[in-house]
Amino acid sequence: MFELGVCYYPEQWPEHMWQRDAQRMVELGLSWVRVGEFAWSLLEEEEGVFDWAWLDRAVDILGTAGLKVVMCTPSAAPPKWLVDQHPDILPVAADGQVRKFGARRHYCFSSDIYREHAVRIAAEYAKRYGANPFVQAWQIDNEYGDHDTIHSYSENAKKAFQRWLAVRYQTIEALNDAWGTAFWSMKYNRFDQVELPNGLVEEPSPTHLLDYQRFASDEVVRFNRAQVDVVRKYAPGRPVTHNFMGHNVDFDHYKVGDDLDFASWDSYPMGALVHSRMDDQEKARLLRTGMPDQPAFNNDLYRRIGQGRAWIMEQQPGPVNWAEHNQSPHDGMVRLWTWLAFAHGIDVVCYFRWRQSRFAQEQFHAGLLLPNDDADQAYYEVAQVAKEMAVLPSGNAGRAPARVALVLDYASRWAAGSLPQGADYSSARNMMNWYQTLSARGVDVDIVGPQDDMAAYDLVILPDVILEDGDLAEKLALSKAKIYLSARTGSKTQNMHIPDNLPPGEFARLVNVKVKRVESLPDYCGDHIELDGQNYPVGNWRECIESDEAILARFKSDHRDQSPALVGNDKCWYGAANFSGALLDVLVDKLLLWAGVPAVQLSADVRITQRGELHFAFNFGDRMAEIDVPAEAEILLGQAKVAPRDLVIWRI
Amino acid sequence: MFELGVCYYPEQWPEHMWQRDAQRMVELGLSWVRVGEFAWSLLEEEEGVFDWAWLDRAVDILGTAGLKVVMCTPSAAPPKWLVDQHPDILPVAADGQVRKFGARRHYCFSSDIYREHAVRIAAEYAKRYGANPFVQAWQIDNEYGDHDTIHSYSENAKKAFQRWLAVRYQTIEALNDAWGTAFWSMKYNRFDQVELPNGLVEEPSPTHLLDYQRFASDEVVRFNRAQVDVVRKYAPGRPVTHNFMGHNVDFDHYKVGDDLDFASWDSYPMGALVHSRMDDQEKARLLRTGMPDQPAFNNDLYRRIGQGRAWIMEQQPGPVNWAEHNQSPHDGMVRLWTWLAFAHGIDVVCYFRWRQSRFAQEQFHAGLLLPNDDADQAYYEVAQVAKEMAVLPSGNAGRAPARVALVLDYASRWAAGSLPQGADYSSARNMMNWYQTLSARGVDVDIVGPQDDMAAYDLVILPDVILEDGDLAEKLALSKAKIYLSARTGSKTQNMHIPDNLPPGEFARLVNVKVKRVESLPDYCGDHIELDGQNYPVGNWRECIESDEAILARFKSDHRDQSPALVGNDKCWYGAANFSGALLDVLVDKLLLWAGVPAVQLSADVRITQRGELHFAFNFGDRMAEIDVPAEAEILLGQAKVAPRDLVIWRI
Amino acid sequence: MFELGVCYYPEQWPEHMWQRDAQRMVELGLSWVRVGEFAWSLLEEEEGVFDWAWLDRAVDILGTAGLKVVMCTPSAAPPKWLVDQHPDILPVAADGQVRKFGARRHYCFSSDIYREHAVRIAAEYAKRYGANPFVQAWQIDNEYGDHDTIHSYSENAKKAFQRWLAVRYQTIEALNDAWGTAFWSMKYNRFDQVELPNGLVEEPSPTHLLDYQRFASDEVVRFNRAQVDVVRKYAPGRPVTHNFMGHNVDFDHYKVGDDLDFASWDSYPMGALVHSRMDDQEKARLLRTGMPDQPAFNNDLYRRIGQGRAWIMEQQPGPVNWAEHNQSPHDGMVRLWTWLAFAHGIDVVCYFRWRQSRFAQEQFHAGLLLPNDDADQAYYEVAQVAKEMAVLPSGNAGRAPARVALVLDYASRWAAGSLPQGADYSSARNMMNWYQTLSARGVDVDIVGPQDDMAAYDLVILPDVILEDGDLAEKLALSKAKIYLSARTGSKTQNMHIPDNLPPGEFARLVNVKVKRVESLPDYCGDHIELDGQNYPVGNWRECIESDEAILARFKSDHRDQSPALVGNDKCWYGAANFSGALLDVLVDKLLLWAGVPAVQLSADVRITQRGELHFAFNFGDRMAEIDVPAEAEILLGQAKVAPRDLVIWRI
Repeated sequence: MFELGVCYYPEQWPEHMWQRDAQRMVELGLSWVRVGEFAWSLLEEEEGVFDWAWLDRAVDILGTAGLKVVMCTPSAAPPKWLVDQHPDILPVAADGQVRKFGARRHYCFSSDIYREHAVRIAAEYAKRYGANPFVQAWQIDNEYGDHDTIHSYSENAKKAFQRWLAVRYQTIEALNDAWGTAFWSMKYNRFDQVELPNGLVEEPSPTHLLDYQRFASDEVVRFNRAQVDVVRKYAPGRPVTHNFMGHNVDFDHYKVGDDLDFASWDSYPMGALVHSRMDDQEKARLLRTGMPDQPAFNNDLYRRIGQGRAWIMEQQPGPVNWAEHNQSPHDGMVRLWTWLAFAHGIDVVCYFRWRQSRFAQEQFHAGLLLPNDDADQAYYEVAQVAKEMAVLPSGNAGRAPARVALVLDYASRWAAGSLPQGADYSSARNMMNWYQTLSARGVDVDIVGPQDDMAAYDLVILPDVILEDGDLAEKLALSKAKIYLSARTGSKTQNMHIPDNLPPGEFARLVNVKVKRVESLPDYCGDHIELDGQNYPVGNWRECIESDEAILARFKSDHRDQSPALVGNDKCWYGAANFSGALLDVLVDKLLLWAGVPAVQLSADVRITQRGELHFAFNFGDRMAEIDVPAEAEILLGQAKVAPRDLVIWRI
Repeated sequence: MFELGVCYYPEQWPEHMWQRDAQRMVELGLSWVRVGEFAWSLLEEEEGVFDWAWLDRAVDILGTAGLKVVMCTPSAAPPKWLVDQHPDILPVAADGQVRKFGARRHYCFSSDIYREHAVRIAAEYAKRYGANPFVQAWQIDNEYGDHDTIHSYSENAKKAFQRWLAVRYQTIEALNDAWGTAFWSMKYNRFDQVELPNGLVEEPSPTHLLDYQRFASDEVVRFNRAQVDVVRKYAPGRPVTHNFMGHNVDFDHYKVGDDLDFASWDSYPMGALVHSRMDDQEKARLLRTGMPDQPAFNNDLYRRIGQGRAWIMEQQPGPVNWAEHNQSPHDGMVRLWTWLAFAHGIDVVCYFRWRQSRFAQEQFHAGLLLPNDDADQAYYEVAQVAKEMAVLPSGNAGRAPARVALVLDYASRWAAGSLPQGADYSSARNMMNWYQTLSARGVDVDIVGPQDDMAAYDLVILPDVILEDGDLAEKLALSKAKIYLSARTGSKTQNMHIPDNLPPGEFARLVNVKVKRVESLPDYCGDHIELDGQNYPVGNWRECIESDEAILARFKSDHRDQSPALVGNDKCWYGAANFSGALLDVLVDKLLLWAGVPAVQLSADVRITQRGELHFAFNFGDRMAEIDVPAEAEILLGQAKVAPRDLVIWRI
Repeated sequence: MFELGVCYYPEQWPEHMWQRDAQRMVELGLSWVRVGEFAWSLLEEEEGVFDWAWLDRAVDILGTAGLKVVMCTPSAAPPKWLVDQHPDILPVAADGQVRKFGARRHYCFSSDIYREHAVRIAAEYAKRYGANPFVQAWQIDNEYGDHDTIHSYSENAKKAFQRWLAVRYQTIEALNDAWGTAFWSMKYNRFDQVELPNGLVEEPSPTHLLDYQRFASDEVVRFNRAQVDVVRKYAPGRPVTHNFMGHNVDFDHYKVGDDLDFASWDSYPMGALVHSRMDDQEKARLLRTGMPDQPAFNNDLYRRIGQGRAWIMEQQPGPVNWAEHNQSPHDGMVRLWTWLAFAHGIDVVCYFRWRQSRFAQEQFHAGLLLPNDDADQAYYEVAQVAKEMAVLPSGNAGRAPARVALVLDYASRWAAGSLPQGADYSSARNMMNWYQTLSARGVDVDIVGPQDDMAAYDLVILPDVILEDGDLAEKLALSKAKIYLSARTGSKTQNMHIPDNLPPGEFARLVNVKVKRVESLPDYCGDHIELDGQNYPVGNWRECIESDEAILARFKSDHRDQSPALVGNDKCWYGAANFSGALLDVLVDKLLLWAGVPAVQLSADVRITQRGELHFAFNFGDRMAEIDVPAEAEILLGQAKVAPRDLVIWRI
């Protein structure tokens, strides 16, 4: 069952507008409305002094009109009176400056006092609305990690980090071993000597950094769970979520997801495009479309984070306000993104926001309505989707598991950042390159964590799973899947050491490789890889490996010419460079063939995917696309000749 | 009456040189000499311990030689003993660091103690020299805003800001409404909860920022007026000025100017060029000439700030020391800039400085003399101007009002910065584009504030008057002028909200437009505007408007193709994009034709202008320029064939 | 006698490996092993609680195996317990933030307490190992200046700076005169009013900055000497060194060198290349070779710093971990760099490090062995060098003085930075340009300080000796050498004033020049210099000079066309621009011809040089190079047809 919703801030509009707003939402075909997330200071004006009346009325109006309410705990924006009472709840930047009140997310995850207040206000919310029949779901906080707020360098964080280390290592000797403090005389005698890894003369031990990031991630998990627990207590039976930001990797989304009933994410493809590293020509091509695969990837990711249940909690409805440039999406894109979400397994799409605000920071951010209450473009597109949804069969069962899995390991991301070695190496970009290349072949993909079951996949790809993981290696060995290990796989132990047997460490049981030298290379390096008789430029990473496996590609270079670039056996291949561009195209074709996964060649503008019995084809380009819909298919929406920024849905 | 002068620092040279210096100044043809602005610590060595004798002697020597003295209050550089007594007079940077003693401008405008000391020392100066017959004018402080010192984030500033807000808003509810604190739970209960808008987790409310900038501007006005008052008290009848920096917009120059008897500004065209955003080829062309219109614009601006009376207090005489690169002006440029200033209504040009200093920060900055007392190039050029001035008719009446006005609104500049929306949008550059395009058509321009009378103009252009202003709209409606409103005009209320009726808010009474969507666009965007059958690339801003006015140009784009780009009626046009380059050329031609303002097409190197009955043509290029001097004209200086970097003056 | 060695960290490896390590070192042909430099916290776990046993055993094992030990004092990395006891030993960054423990070099040179502890631990080391027969040399601290740690802005530094100023100036009036505090009212009444030159509103007086840098340099000298003294006391007869970083100029290496028995430096040509300002094409050409002249220059420099005795203490053995990109050197480069060092007068080359570390910050940094104990590439190359060394005649006498000297004045480097005037002006790059251009002509060069004897040189070149130096001028006048003075020579007095007689100040006794105007020019400036009928683009600096000397080249420009660009007499030439590229090629050819120094034209890849009776030719390129070995020569190693990255040694 697919539903639509909207984010609504009654506190920003005169009360006389609420009734009409609610009615229009229902008329538009919306089922859900999200409220309350930035309302703390309006509900609790001084500690313990509450004014619930206005929110009571708003919920009542919305619910009575027929909408289901997502109620949000307001902890993303503590009130000024609370900050004034407890200045040490503020986060501290890496340069030691306290980050002040005046926007949002001005709290440190390690402040016990703040967490208590966050739980307290969440409890008050839940007591008041937990049994309210209109309130059918809960969101905790808002966008953990936005504005770079996971990493705080406060005294509270220092103390909490010391405690966390004591639990992890038990003895200071174990920490000294793990961090390699014999190097540079960094030995600690006691846990309370350890400081946060900011403001040093030079980079800290990478294990110090990695542990700090693990700690910071755990702090988010703890903060979130404390609210989940209290909401569940007072709002039993109502599913609880958090709205994640797709690009943030400062905490382990799997772990937060494990504490939720479903995941949700906030989808802003325009801003994501402007911030990407594509060249200007490609950006110009996608200027008002965005990268087709960016929302698709995140839909797939949060489907996993939510263990099969995922929403888009905020869908961009027009230009935003926070990117370097803020262009408009093409007319039609809001509808297309909505259908794309559904196709990738999303259950509910909520638009951000009902009406563009007249004031404050985000007034340039569009809504479904203009500030003067006129309908904006997205309003019409949402109306269209709401109408089109009628063609869907009832009770759709969700998306089946894919045949190909991409492994995303948050701790490996932190490991890469703890010891980058090459300035422009980006695990995020590598992951997206894999996803795009597979998508361009019409291949559906699951994003999985190292802890996940992988037995059923035909092909499992490990891009930048830097941290050695014996359990994962074992699991892969026992699976039926073909495996691809990228360069750097298993290049560090969980303690950020080089494995005893050299990289890829325990993964060497899959493919007999020993990495004997690595290079991070600048753009102007002229090395190539010869693969199937063609030469391709090497990217920013090259490894010299020793292996008795079959050599599938070799380096062409004046440095160690002919050294192996791709080796493998019938179970597992290892790539000794960062494959991208045309080289990755060829590699993916070979991998799919090897794994027996069927592939087609799609144009850059077309994507196809499947949800249950439904097949979707999307045309992101500006020319008509002819889709190969099987003769026996029943077309539910659209037609095989898909117009620009349109789609076709069929069932076989 | 046109006069020349020079900045002189007797304290930097042995006393035995003073007499000869004074004599040479007079021989050179100078009338004015500016002294005293950085002399505090030499006059008052400890609090209350004065040594006036040396300055008495210097003034006496200069005055006796026949020079009129501009005496400067020394508040731009408080002595170390004062800083040590009151460390909290130091300004605080946005990152929270106190900005230390050791250069200049190390004070916070919100320090009451410092303002009292500044007034005290100004009073001491004025008591000593107020009645001195040689001291004929006074300058307060030096270059407000230099080194980014308007915005201080001190405790003093915070307290003063809170008081300023209490006066502005009266009730905290009014502030909450204005700032939109319902957004992101930013509500305040009391004025003393409000903090300065630095160091936040994310950008503050734009109204918070705008108010802070209004406040900071008012602090400068207050600081300046306090000194003006005391100088006027003890030096009655002597005109008082301040030397502004043309590019600084951190405070409202109109308001400071209103408290002065005349305005003055400091003209450094070489440094301005290096810091501009032109491409390298254009910079190379202008390398040793500077942008011809940069000093011209500022002459026009400060003529307005001084309400018709303006000087150049510091004219660049050769290379400076503070730009990224410091090239020499071409020989002849110092003379040309001097004549350009006169042509644009400037009454006195003072050169910075008599003799290049041997020591300290600015020793690479040229003077009229070299450090070894040899004449430098500018010395000869000043001598030439002084001789040439004899051709001027006596009693010249100044410049007549222009037929075209450009509206410069300081608060709108702050508004643009408070919510930029597009990374490379520059109101300053837009203003200069308009000025240059008009100047290249031989059109004289007045710079006016929104508060000014505009009844007599034929054409009034509002570039980036972002803040809605009903009085201005009314005034323009009642005037005889044709009006041009740029994109973004009236796009925010005075409280930085989107107007109820959408932009351009109250300006919609002039032209019936509703802005329904805006885009800030990157360079690589391929959109165009079709104007009179030609296509021009759209700049970095595009609006989708609704209007029933005549459509004068349309967008060519794959996004909302044919939407109106320029609309208007017989009173007022509205441009829905940021017009620049060739597109602006055509627009300006159309506007001038429409308004009936005569125009000519000048080469990039030639500029013509008029002061009273005198006509000037300047050739900034490196080839001879043939000027169309009317047959009946009397040529007072030069000839119609104007040599490179030369001019011709005629009278009809 | 030429020897090889290695840096070894027994504390990073299990003790059972030490014996075999020592044995392999000896077998490899190594004579020296460096230990102990980052071992403080492992030797002294709390103040006064020592555990020497493990280091005793390590030294014994190494010495018994036949190795000579370089023992290092551990002051580069104070233990955490010491930092916790005395937090004010930490350095303070320019932004006022304390730089924290967790890496290395976290100490302020002005902390008396830290210096006392550094001397104390050095004394403990020296008492323990001073008479140990295996410990044959001592190193003090490690890489002064690494991680930008010379300049600390602590309270300790402020107090020490005030004391230093009181000694230098005796009276506050003298300081006021020197710093030119009459400018901008910066006058001081007492030394204790003076602050450090960080965090100001605008740049400080350049004399303030220059004095601060002199002070900071003196603090390093004092810190180093205190340890040298105590090591000499307890380890009499053992030579003492420090391992310098070649590119650091934050302290006067001559002065530290004067307190040592020999100099050593750390050679990392790959990282140096990535950080250089060459264009990408040239970087690509040299990607895995590095700039041939970068190590050569430093070998020559530290030969001087060590007064004829110099080592490489750390030689890069493979990829490093700290540059933006970290490529591998070509196979063969480690051997080539080793021979290059010997040719340039180096006595011992120690490789950094024996075995690549498994953990901590530098785990990506190669060693002679891989972390798993396999031999890495450098191991084989060292073995080859060790074998080849047998061909050397015994008792080689070192390198003879060169005929050409380049003057490197550290204080002039600080002067250039104190008042840069042009953004991209780099004295370091200028020096390297001179060195490269001379090397490309087969000319051996000595690097000399202004204090050195220059009587015997044929040609002395002063690039960027900005500070006027009467003694140097006198010495040069009395020498037999031909002299070249670059632009800016003598442009400031020792107090950073413009000389009374204008630049080049006292150097004008060598060549009658008066600099009347200077320009720092951007890349896009189109000025040229005509030299011998050819036109060459002017670099980033141009001077307009007055001179009655012969004019050897002139500027071609639309600004002061034909003004002299190069003038001179039979003793001394003066260049009025920053000569580089093809212009410098021609100038150097003319200078060598004039001075009678024989030159050849070498390809970019080939370098020749001489040590005593031995002649060397190196081929850094990737093609065979045919070297012109005299017929009568005895070839000791290699052959006249030199393979890529190979060499030939002959004796006549």
